[in-house]
Amino acid sequence: MAIVGGGFAGLAAARALAGAPVDILLVDRRNHHVFQPLLYQVATAALSPADISASIRAVVRGQRNCEVVLAEATGVDLTGRRVRLGENWRGYDYLVLAAGATHTWFGHDDWAPLAPGLKTIEDATEMRRRILLAFESAEYEGSAEARRAKLTFGIVGAGPTGVELAGAIQEIAGRTIPEDFRHIDTRTTRVILFEAGERILPTFPPQLSARAQRDLERMGVEVRLRSQVTGVTRQGIHLGASFVPLRNVFWAAGVQASPLGRALGVPVDRAGRVFVGPDLAVPGHPEVFVVGDLAAATSADTGRPVPGVAQGGIQMGRHVAHAIAAQARAGASAAPRRPFVYRDKGSLAVIGKAKAVAEIGRLRTGGFLAWLLWGGVHILFLIGFRNRVQVLLNWFWNWLLDARDARLITGPASLEVRESRAGDATADGTPRRPES
Amino acid sequence: MAIVGGGFAGLAAARALAGAPVDILLVDRRNHHVFQPLLYQVATAALSPADISASIRAVVRGQRNCEVVLAEATGVDLTGRRVRLGENWRGYDYLVLAAGATHTWFGHDDWAPLAPGLKTIEDATEMRRRILLAFESAEYEGSAEARRAKLTFGIVGAGPTGVELAGAIQEIAGRTIPEDFRHIDTRTTRVILFEAGERILPTFPPQLSARAQRDLERMGVEVRLRSQVTGVTRQGIHLGASFVPLRNVFWAAGVQASPLGRALGVPVDRAGRVFVGPDLAVPGHPEVFVVGDLAAATSADTGRPVPGVAQGGIQMGRHVAHAIAAQARAGASAAPRRPFVYRDKGSLAVIGKAKAVAEIGRLRTGGFLAWLLWGGVHILFLIGFRNRVQVLLNWFWNWLLDARDARLITGPASLEVRESRAGDATADGTPRRPES
Repeated sequence: MAIVGGGFAGLAAARALAGAPVDILLVDRRNHHVFQPLLYQVATAALSPADISASIRAVVRGQRNCEVVLAEATGVDLTGRRVRLGENWRGYDYLVLAAGATHTWFGHDDWAPLAPGLKTIEDATEMRRRILLAFESAEYEGSAEARRAKLTFGIVGAGPTGVELAGAIQEIAGRTIPEDFRHIDTRTTRVILFEAGERILPTFPPQLSARAQRDLERMGVEVRLRSQVTGVTRQGIHLGASFVPLRNVFWAAGVQASPLGRALGVPVDRAGRVFVGPDLAVPGHPEVFVVGDLAAATSADTGRPVPGVAQGGIQMGRHVAHAIAAQARAGASAAPRRPFVYRDKGSLAVIGKAKAVAEIGRLRTGGFLAWLLWGGVHILFLIGFRNRVQVLLNWFWNWLLDARDARLITGPASLEVRESRAGDATADGTPRRPES
Repeated sequence: MAIVGGGFAGLAAARALAGAPVDILLVDRRNHHVFQPLLYQVATAALSPADISASIRAVVRGQRNCEVVLAEATGVDLTGRRVRLGENWRGYDYLVLAAGATHTWFGHDDWAPLAPGLKTIEDATEMRRRILLAFESAEYEGSAEARRAKLTFGIVGAGPTGVELAGAIQEIAGRTIPEDFRHIDTRTTRVILFEAGERILPTFPPQLSARAQRDLERMGVEVRLRSQVTGVTRQGIHLGASFVPLRNVFWAAGVQASPLGRALGVPVDRAGRVFVGPDLAVPGHPEVFVVGDLAAATSADTGRPVPGVAQGGIQMGRHVAHAIAAQARAGASAAPRRPFVYRDKGSLAVIGKAKAVAEIGRLRTGGFLAWLLWGGVHILFLIGFRNRVQVLLNWFWNWLLDARDARLITGPASLEVRESRAGDATADGTPRRPES
């Protein structure tokens, strides 16, 4: 059998199949699993990439029925029961698709270089580079207006990632680096969080959204609700008729399923997620399961969609692993498959130092307690004992000294490289001149 | 005054000028100082880049007479006493040039993409990518001959970096990852260390060279002395008439001073290092000092060249800082400058787990004691308390479990990218066909 994707869902499936009478081919185009909930901490120089990553081979090293292939799955032949890996096809008896999701700029792919998102380690180090270079570039900017634009950060989308990024950038500017510069006061940095909807953290209860917004605003973040971005240029962000001049935009707004979903040729939703049955299999193909962010799945008890969070992926991965193991053991006499039920273990989002919001069961809380909960849960789910120790050590240090010691600008060293890489276009695709 | 370069020499000069009545402009094209002696551990997945790096701004944060500029110094106008930073010129009263050294492929720049060296964080993550991808690529190689070439590593140059790389790659293949693969036995990996001279570690006493070679060979590394590389192709290494088929070449052979040295228009040696007087100033320009790997300096007591090691740079940097501080305080009535005397604090090179060689004063030793000395000295000289704790923790872990947990393949994800980036040429510049 084959599992495509070494994220939360795919890895959970592979591990839950340890000891089952199946031979697993675990396929990922990366050699490492990334703990995505902490990716924003790499982007904001608090952690190193290796702290939140684990070699997929090392994770399943002891699992003799699992073989890892570093390859990109580019297509599935449902009839022939084979999956395409690069130039080759590999047959399967069972297939678990867990290829995840990527960004979408809602049809404006030309915004991508101007407003990068955060899904991979490379995304994170690129974002870190841009954040740190913004201050470097402002330090020697002669024009007050241009300096202000360079010291203004726009984050588009106020889900957990957007909120976490906004809070972290505000902390860098306000606490970590003010002493490092001689010509600018980094505490004057503006961080603006743009959200098209009515409130931030829309998947949380309204009172926690309000709490989070208040906390962000007290830290100095500007929250702009009902603000639909209609254009991104090198000079700033368009919101319909109004324009905000800024030089740093990060995208935390749209998510789209892996193209592998559409490549199946079965019904998908608008975001490209594959509609699956209650057993998470593709209708008409009981041997093909889709799990994690690639699946448009509902929980059998409530009929509500399974949210695109780590827990959703992990639970789906384990569910299909148990179904496959049962069938592999019992063959045709296996009991009918059970429908998938999502168990909501709660939601957490961090805002800043000693600030977070948490909804766990009936508990709805913010502030220090939520922050401790957030830290505890994330340490618990990190893969690898050493990663846990390293991250705890880093967090303790950062907390104690307001430090962020992974402040590396790597990759293109030039201050202006990002300009030359970036296009310049607005919602209607026409180039614009600077405005303000 | 200006200091160009935030390596060991430049940073030592800047820090030694804390409190002196001078205004320092510290220029580097990178925002971080790199602890180069441990760079090979990033290249071999034992440490993360941030573990051995420090933000230059953070290092001199408290030093109010020091301003950091992220820029590349591209020229010096000795007569006009100004240094070119990108598009701008900045005047100086004193100038300390500490721009360091880079690789040289001895006129064969076309070898560079095939045989990369190790000087920057990007070099290290690229080398790590190639090492890890070599095993990934071998895992699914059908041809036994091609698999053997993919599992063969050639390291050119047997100074400390070459020796350390050879030992570390052998340890990865032999101890860290054998359980991770299903189709190849990584313990069959060949690591070949090519050295043009008569012995490895030529700057060490001959008995330590012999000891190190014996240790390497016991680990499984093949040492080839009197082996001058005459060609590097995608298929392997040419040594005159003979050819060694291998797919992974790393360069630890040639060092050349920064082009900034030649740009001065004063006498330089063959490696482009600037000849300096006993006070480390450029002859005829007492206000311009050259220190570190950019200087062709001799120690005033022995008349012997100052070696291109961290200690040489640090001592030179401090020496010129004291001269500048004295002159800035006393003006024309300052005492005459003292000639630079290099104090040899010893040499250390690590070979593998519990294996190193050390020459400190009259002590010449190998094995476990030398390894402990090596670790202690390197921890001591790392900048930043947190880096020290992190590196110690990592080392302890690696030692305990033969682990290397920074096994990230980042950057181009494709297995074959390195092929398409690489040229294909031999010493005489003509393309060659595979041979063996």
